[in-house]
Amino acid sequence: MTFDPVPLNRAIVDEVIAEYGIAVGSASIREVNRVINMIEERVGMKFIRMEFGIPGLPANAIALEAERRILLDPLIANTYSPFDGIPELKEAASEFVAAFMNVDAPPHCCVPTVGSMHGGFISMGIAGYRFAERDTILFLDPGFPVNKLQCQVWGLENRSVDVYDRRGPELVDAIEAEFATGKVGGILYSSPNNPTWVCFKESELEGIGKLCTKYGVIAIEDLAYFGMDFREVYDEPGKPPYQPTVAHYTDEYILLISSSKIFSYAGQRVAVSVISPKLFEKSSEALAERFGTSNLGHAFVHGGMYPTTAGVAVSVQHGLAALFRAATAGEIRFTEPVRVYAERAKEMKRAFLENGFLLVYDNDLGQPLADGFYFTVSYPGLDGAKLLEELIYYGVSAIALATTGSTRGEGIRACVSLTTRERIPELRHRLQAFHASRSGA
Amino acid sequence: MTFDPVPLNRAIVDEVIAEYGIAVGSASIREVNRVINMIEERVGMKFIRMEFGIPGLPANAIALEAERRILLDPLIANTYSPFDGIPELKEAASEFVAAFMNVDAPPHCCVPTVGSMHGGFISMGIAGYRFAERDTILFLDPGFPVNKLQCQVWGLENRSVDVYDRRGPELVDAIEAEFATGKVGGILYSSPNNPTWVCFKESELEGIGKLCTKYGVIAIEDLAYFGMDFREVYDEPGKPPYQPTVAHYTDEYILLISSSKIFSYAGQRVAVSVISPKLFEKSSEALAERFGTSNLGHAFVHGGMYPTTAGVAVSVQHGLAALFRAATAGEIRFTEPVRVYAERAKEMKRAFLENGFLLVYDNDLGQPLADGFYFTVSYPGLDGAKLLEELIYYGVSAIALATTGSTRGEGIRACVSLTTRERIPELRHRLQAFHASRSGA
Repeated sequence: MTFDPVPLNRAIVDEVIAEYGIAVGSASIREVNRVINMIEERVGMKFIRMEFGIPGLPANAIALEAERRILLDPLIANTYSPFDGIPELKEAASEFVAAFMNVDAPPHCCVPTVGSMHGGFISMGIAGYRFAERDTILFLDPGFPVNKLQCQVWGLENRSVDVYDRRGPELVDAIEAEFATGKVGGILYSSPNNPTWVCFKESELEGIGKLCTKYGVIAIEDLAYFGMDFREVYDEPGKPPYQPTVAHYTDEYILLISSSKIFSYAGQRVAVSVISPKLFEKSSEALAERFGTSNLGHAFVHGGMYPTTAGVAVSVQHGLAALFRAATAGEIRFTEPVRVYAERAKEMKRAFLENGFLLVYDNDLGQPLADGFYFTVSYPGLDGAKLLEELIYYGVSAIALATTGSTRGEGIRACVSLTTRERIPELRHRLQAFHASRSGA
Repeated sequence: MTFDPVPLNRAIVDEVIAEYGIAVGSASIREVNRVINMIEERVGMKFIRMEFGIPGLPANAIALEAERRILLDPLIANTYSPFDGIPELKEAASEFVAAFMNVDAPPHCCVPTVGSMHGGFISMGIAGYRFAERDTILFLDPGFPVNKLQCQVWGLENRSVDVYDRRGPELVDAIEAEFATGKVGGILYSSPNNPTWVCFKESELEGIGKLCTKYGVIAIEDLAYFGMDFREVYDEPGKPPYQPTVAHYTDEYILLISSSKIFSYAGQRVAVSVISPKLFEKSSEALAERFGTSNLGHAFVHGGMYPTTAGVAVSVQHGLAALFRAATAGEIRFTEPVRVYAERAKEMKRAFLENGFLLVYDNDLGQPLADGFYFTVSYPGLDGAKLLEELIYYGVSAIALATTGSTRGEGIRACVSLTTRERIPELRHRLQAFHASRSGA
């Protein structure tokens, strides 16, 4: 097997980076993406692309077929949908969360959004403006960098707790210390976690849930990787184990269920926000000031969905409804296609670890970390920014962990989705060359 | 011809309204909609529905076919689009505004949004947070009620100038008085106007444009009814007359071009925001605080599109691109199908005027008002809320003009889109019965 020679011509790489005028080590995902596209073009070779957390699998055919069928009728696409979603999708979502989470959320509590980005945006606004003085969102970091930008766009404050050295009771204590200030309106986290693939344990979710109840803080649980802790089988409808969730432990929750990764449906921008039925009915005067209504559920729909986008594209809602129905009926096992990510992660991690790299977030509360969509690595003697800059000369791209809110300056985040199995030997070759150059230095 | 008997059983109508616990006269469009649905069900007859401004025509087949074609490829719907839109749509939009507005806006300035609601929301945020102290949006009223809610959700202030008794130089003077306070960051209006169907003249747009330049205020021009001033023919590509626009008179503009009405594509939620190329490049420090970047165009995309929805459903973008291309190539004349609204408006207005009603906004700067999607009427001796409440007993629904920010308390807004020509005799019959009851009273 022959591989493209590495390192690349440093002068060319440096030239492209200079043209973009950015510091790659602290650049956002999209910025890294653009620079690497240009480097690939100039040097005429393909990188191992690990910066972008995008699906590498085809979109689920059930959704595409459902959309195509709906689009045959010209009297559907012409009509505004209800802002809170079409009944078909609301019902299918309600059945989906019952079947795979054992959570009871009636259809009116399941609100389709333009991707989980949209649901998260509205949820943060609701959580941050629900009570005067509680204008802070607490993030369990590292996380998805754009969530902090959402907070900023709302004019809200943010605080952060890093899960690196705080798991279990220590994590819960650290969260309580923040809640006790009286300034926190919402807590946001993802589990499985982007970028570390840490998966919170039931005891941690229970701790978070109890604190949310005690302090009246909304848990915004980002389930972008629903069912993708592949150590368990979460996609058998109506049977345990269920996707772990804070909803088992508190009524103060909004769950963000994305279709992007599990159904590889990212381009169509659809997700569902599941609002706790009890939270949906709660009222607060501060909400009315911002969203025109004091009722929380109404504020989400009438004050959130309506003024931002007035709903979700109707054909896309039918697409997601078809997927939820197929999963709930047991006609598809939705984690099956995405299990390939775990296999890639295992092999890619091995290629890194064989060549002097270390896992940064390596511990899932005593268990080894699961293999999934992302992992985090470092290389002794280099911080994350410098490591990323060096790897680029070897045809490997990622993002620096510091940009995800991590306190661990030494790491990078790698996403496995775009690296097919056939290219892993090439990744290993490039990492060997990188490691040899460092050892010889 | 036989008609359903009116008035309806008052007790039943009153009972339904009491169940919803709302004051119909001051209710929002959606609230009126829900109550009328329920009354229709209880009394078993169909209203003349004029409350909802939704397309009454089938969606344009070109878009649906383009979407269905794209959805055959499972490697499109799986991938995140660029936040600023797919190149195909950006290019098609740029050509569309050149062909039908004679406006030069390169593709990077044409940003697809999840309906004009989304574009308007982001535009208001940009305009209101561009400079500290200029946190007010000025509305030319009456208007679309949700725009004020958008302003409130952003935490911005709003002011209003009613066009009823201010047109031409007086309108421009009234706007300047507001701009001169130094508190206004943006001015929002629609032309043709919802709800009055007033269409601003070139002299008015020129006046507004010059003031926007002078005071550095962004004109947010809502072109929801693009080309629908049917007194002119605006859909011949590359030939005058062009859709009038403030973009001919200032570089401080964002144009909101919707597909909902002209292409009857409302359910798929797609529009384009056209940002002035010069405005796109401008910078201000206050923008960075809110949107993470001081550059205005980047703030719109990176600080607006990204954190709210991360873009627009990809198949829908292809649908709109196909429509724009067909219109620009002259393959379709996009105002042809919607001219039916003007015919309906003419006949429906006549039915009202024959039965004691008066037009509220009846004057388009000296010309009679055009016939279009909406009109406004009043009935002597009743304010708008009371008029609406009375008309409901006669099987006719609309919204009170007061809910649109109008200073004219006496009127209601009627939308023609859902009333087919065959039902206009029935409308006339009901208005006759209403008028007879009032005259007898």
